[in-house]
Order: sequence, then structure tokens, then C-alpha cells
Amino acid sequence: MTIATREWQLVSRPHGEPVASDFRLVEADRPDPAPGQVVVRTIAMSVDPYMRGRMNATKSYAPSWELGETMQGGAVGQVVASRSDAVPEGALVLHGMGWRDIAVLDAGHVSVVPPLPGLPLSLYLGVLGMPGLTAWAGLFRVATFRAGDAVFVSGAAGAVGSLVGQFARLRGASRVVGSAGTPEKVRWLRDELRFSAAFNYHDGPVADLLTAAAPEGIDVFFDNVGGEHLEAAVTALNVHGRAALCGSISGYNAVTAPPGPRNLSLLVGKRLALRGFLVSDHGDLRPEFVETVSGWLRDGALVARETVVDGLDGAVDAFRDLLRGGNTGKMVVRLTPDPD
Amino acid sequence: MTIATREWQLVSRPHGEPVASDFRLVEADRPDPAPGQVVVRTIAMSVDPYMRGRMNATKSYAPSWELGETMQGGAVGQVVASRSDAVPEGALVLHGMGWRDIAVLDAGHVSVVPPLPGLPLSLYLGVLGMPGLTAWAGLFRVATFRAGDAVFVSGAAGAVGSLVGQFARLRGASRVVGSAGTPEKVRWLRDELRFSAAFNYHDGPVADLLTAAAPEGIDVFFDNVGGEHLEAAVTALNVHGRAALCGSISGYNAVTAPPGPRNLSLLVGKRLALRGFLVSDHGDLRPEFVETVSGWLRDGALVARETVVDGLDGAVDAFRDLLRGGNTGKMVVRLTPDPD
Repeated sequence: MTIATREWQLVSRPHGEPVASDFRLVEADRPDPAPGQVVVRTIAMSVDPYMRGRMNATKSYAPSWELGETMQGGAVGQVVASRSDAVPEGALVLHGMGWRDIAVLDAGHVSVVPPLPGLPLSLYLGVLGMPGLTAWAGLFRVATFRAGDAVFVSGAAGAVGSLVGQFARLRGASRVVGSAGTPEKVRWLRDELRFSAAFNYHDGPVADLLTAAAPEGIDVFFDNVGGEHLEAAVTALNVHGRAALCGSISGYNAVTAPPGPRNLSLLVGKRLALRGFLVSDHGDLRPEFVETVSGWLRDGALVARETVVDGLDGAVDAFRDLLRGGNTGKMVVRLTPDPD
Repeated sequence: MTIATREWQLVSRPHGEPVASDFRLVEADRPDPAPGQVVVRTIAMSVDPYMRGRMNATKSYAPSWELGETMQGGAVGQVVASRSDAVPEGALVLHGMGWRDIAVLDAGHVSVVPPLPGLPLSLYLGVLGMPGLTAWAGLFRVATFRAGDAVFVSGAAGAVGSLVGQFARLRGASRVVGSAGTPEKVRWLRDELRFSAAFNYHDGPVADLLTAAAPEGIDVFFDNVGGEHLEAAVTALNVHGRAALCGSISGYNAVTAPPGPRNLSLLVGKRLALRGFLVSDHGDLRPEFVETVSGWLRDGALVARETVVDGLDGAVDAFRDLLRGGNTGKMVVRLTPDPD
């Protein structure tokens, strides 16, 4: 017997912006689970900006996806068959084999998670998962945020950025400023997430917009965008300022390298630190992160918004839309309803 | 009674490369010392790249020099008259009122230093002074150098760079690579300072020269040059690499901002840290620095070369030559011989 599933594969490496024909949705028959394996039906899968890098052949921190192979990524699902005593049928699990209806994988490659009464399980892909820990580690460890700091976050309406700004506010930032790409996102940052200020980076040079939003300068910069945002932030950072570099989505589809910040000589006199980081180095922070953030979610202190796309068929379009900023908060693809 | 002296003044702000007419050497009569003051005859004065920034009106970490006023800078001298019990006549002192034959200043603004038997007192302006502590703090604290690291230093034949490379070697670097601007300097780095490799940055793209000199990559970058050197180093840095940004002499005479490094998105995946620093934040390291480096000087482990210009008249030309790379090791202007 075999297991029928559908899977998204990469069939050509995008040049610039990915197009639909770079991908195909195939029907596959996967072998039954071997001893020690489990079969997981996907409830929701993640689309993340970092996946753009995996579509390139060039070496990056995450391995390249192979052409003609099924893509991978974060997913939450339910075990529908098990040949492992450790992970029984019915368990809810997180794993890295998204982009498919059903995954067959070693029990050691899944993490059992508790149910989230009253909340969607897809939060394990966002606020309670990799994007949440990214925001936590980047702000508190990499940028060494301290109460009283003025914080600027680029891509502030995204999965990570929207949490960075709220974490900073909840931990006593003197000012929280965010940038986003639409008027609706800017209003959401100001009105619902209660940022001190937010601006639409299409409205003028980022340096001018940032100066207006943070006239006293900033102490911490959390960067998801790169390019012009980074240059503006270097100018705005106060003495002993720190930047956590998480991503540079502005350049992910770039065919030629975008211009670099021309003001790095300011790092010397202002004693600034720019640090790139990957969440995978900071797993030791997970217990304190889960405890604190779960509490904020339960008592309503934290807004965790999702942009949900329904159905595996729409996953590639969801990813392409993500790179164009089509999401507010975390973008997920929901394949099946949460179990009761 | 007054004190006759000669002093260098800034009379116009350089546009690009400083020219002789931006400065004037004046004869002045300074008032006799007030109670608590000392009169110091300059033995040697320092010319340093950071002084280019003080010639601009724009805000920087060191205050701008005023037009029509006497310039300032590090100097070592001997007290020739004293109205302070703390600093007697005959004492050797360090102070910040260079660019003049004689300085009249508060005793609280000088530091008494011991004689250096067998060594020139000008070493207090170099290996035992600000450039030495800059190399020490930047390498060991800012870049958190550890034995086994491969180190690249730009401007490696300069006052700071030549010490960085030697400090790294003496503390167990796996490889020490330096860049400089003449074949003579490159030979000096290889043959006398015993760098593992050195290259002339005029010989090709720095990225290519660095790859050839450090095919396994680098763990620490100490930057005195900026621009193309910084971009090449970001590419060459290994995972968890660190850069201490000390200066960017390549841009000091620039009229427009030079292009920035186009590869900063590499900071994320490689988890690199770029940190600017000023030696003034790291004075607490001075005791361990002086003890260790004095020992290395005494036992000959450390080469501390100077480029010496004779006479106050030549000080401006010395400074201009410094910005063109005319020095090997620390450049100083000697006004009078060391006292016996």
C-alpha cells in the first residue's frame, strides 16, 4: 500500500521575481511508514521570506532546494498513522516537511506540541514558532535591548517585525517606530499595535521619514529589509547603538547587488554594532520565550495577526505575494481545519 | 613676561585633500603660567589620520578645530616651568596640546610618564600610547580575538595596523594577513613583522587579493581603511566572524561618499558582527596593555617602527604625507631631542 499526496516542487530556479512556472504541484505516492516513522497530515504550512534564498543554487545558510524535488519548510500537522511509540497517532506535531498534504518522516524529526485551546494551531508557525523566537532573540540577545531604548524595526507589519515592535513596547521601550509598505499596514501599526510612530517607506526617502518619526534618534534597529533602510538607520542610530540584522527582503529578488550603505564610517565615531543572526543559534532561549509570550497571548497584551491562504493549491501564490508584501503579520497556508 | 612660541593654525577647511594654504605657522606670545599650570616644551608631536575629521565643520567624535585657532593633538614633552606641586619642572609628560613648540596648560591636563631608557620618548605617541591601545582594545575586546583565529588587518603598515598584526601573531593567530600600499611596506610586513601573507592593494581587486592570501577565510577583520577593503572582508569572513572598525582612511579626503559594501546581506547567514569603536571607551585596558606591550618591547618580540619628521615646520607636510600613506609605522614630528 502507498500513501497518495500532493506536493509542490521547484522545477526552475527563479531569475529575479519567482513566476508560477518555476513550480509544479504533483501527485505522488509515498511508501508506507517504516518502523520508527510517522505519517502526518498537514494542518497548516509556513511561507517565509528566507525560502527565496533556498530557490537559488548559490550557497546560503539554508540548503538549496533541488530542482525536481519537493520543497520543504515549517508545518504543523496531526499524526494519522504511527510506527513510533514516542509519537502516537493523533499527536499534534511541528516539522520541516511542508509544501505537501501528507508527510512521512522519522519520529525524531517531529516535535510534539500541546493543543492551543481557543487559538489556531498555525500560531506554532508564527508567534509561538520560528518568527516569534527570531524576534525575541534578535531584540533581546543580539541587539541587547534595554528598557528605555528607542527602537526602529523595518518591515514592521511582517511576521517578525510586528512582534519585535510589540516585544519592545511591552518591555519598556521609550519609543517604537516601524516602517511598512501600505497605508493600511501603517494604520495597523499605529492603531492596533500601538507603535509610537510608523511610516510608509514609499512616501519619501527613508532617511527623512525616519528622522521625522524618531527626531531624537534610535538606540536599536531591527532590520528585515536591508538596503536604504539600513543606511537610514545607521545615520539615525545614537552613540553605542545596536542593530540586529535579520533579513534583507528588499534584495531577495534582486538580480544585481543593490547599492550598499555609504555611511558605514559612522560606525566608528558612534561606536555602533551591526550583528547578523540566525534564529537557529538561539534555541536555548525557547523556554523563556514560550513562557513569556504565551502569557502575553493569554492575557491579550500581544496582537498576533495572521494572513491565511486556504488550500495547498494556493501556496506558491501565497509565497510570491509574501515577497511583494501582501501579508500583514504571519502568512500561513491552511490545508485542513484544526482538529476539535 | 610672556612665552614666545610657534604654533600651527587651521585657516581654511580643506575640500578634499588638505593643501598647504589651509594652514599657517604663527609666532605667538603666551602668558606666563597661572597657579596650577605648567609650561611644557614639546619633544615630539603626533600626526594621526583622525585629525582629518577635526578639520571639517561637521560633527564628529572629536571636536572640530576652529578656524584661526591653534590645532591640537597628542604630544610628549618636558616641563620647563611649573606652578604645580603635582608636576615638577623636569617631568616628562603626555598631553593633548601638540602642534606648537611650547604649551602652557593646567597640570590636570598632563600625564606624567616615566623615562624609557634606551627607547625614544616618542613611543608614547605610538606603541605605548593611543595607537597601541587602539590596536589592543580593537583586537582583543571589540573583535574578541581568540588564539587560532585567522586575522586580516587593512592599512597593516600603519601605526595601528602594524601592531594589530603583531599582537595577533604573538597571541596565537592561525594566520595574519595585511594589506598596504607599496611593495616596500608589503615586504616589511612579510619579512620583518612576520605576517603570514601581505598584499599591495594597488595590485588588483582587494577581494581577489584577499582570497589568495587567506584561502580558508578569516575570523577577524581589523579595518583602518574602509570602502573596498570592508566589502572584501565581509565576503572573506567565516561564520561567526567579527570586524573591529577603527577607521576608514580611504574616505577621509573624499568629497562625495564612496560606494558602500554591497554584500551586507551576508551578515545574516554568516552571523557576522561589525563593530565600530573609539579607543577613548577602553581606557580601563591600559594597565594590562602597558604591562604586556612593554615586556614585548623589552625582549624584542615586538617591532615598533616610526617614521620621524624633524622640526615643527614640517608638521603639516607630515600630516598630508600621512594621508597619502607616506609613513611606515607611527608617524611623529620631532621638535627637540630626548633629554638625557
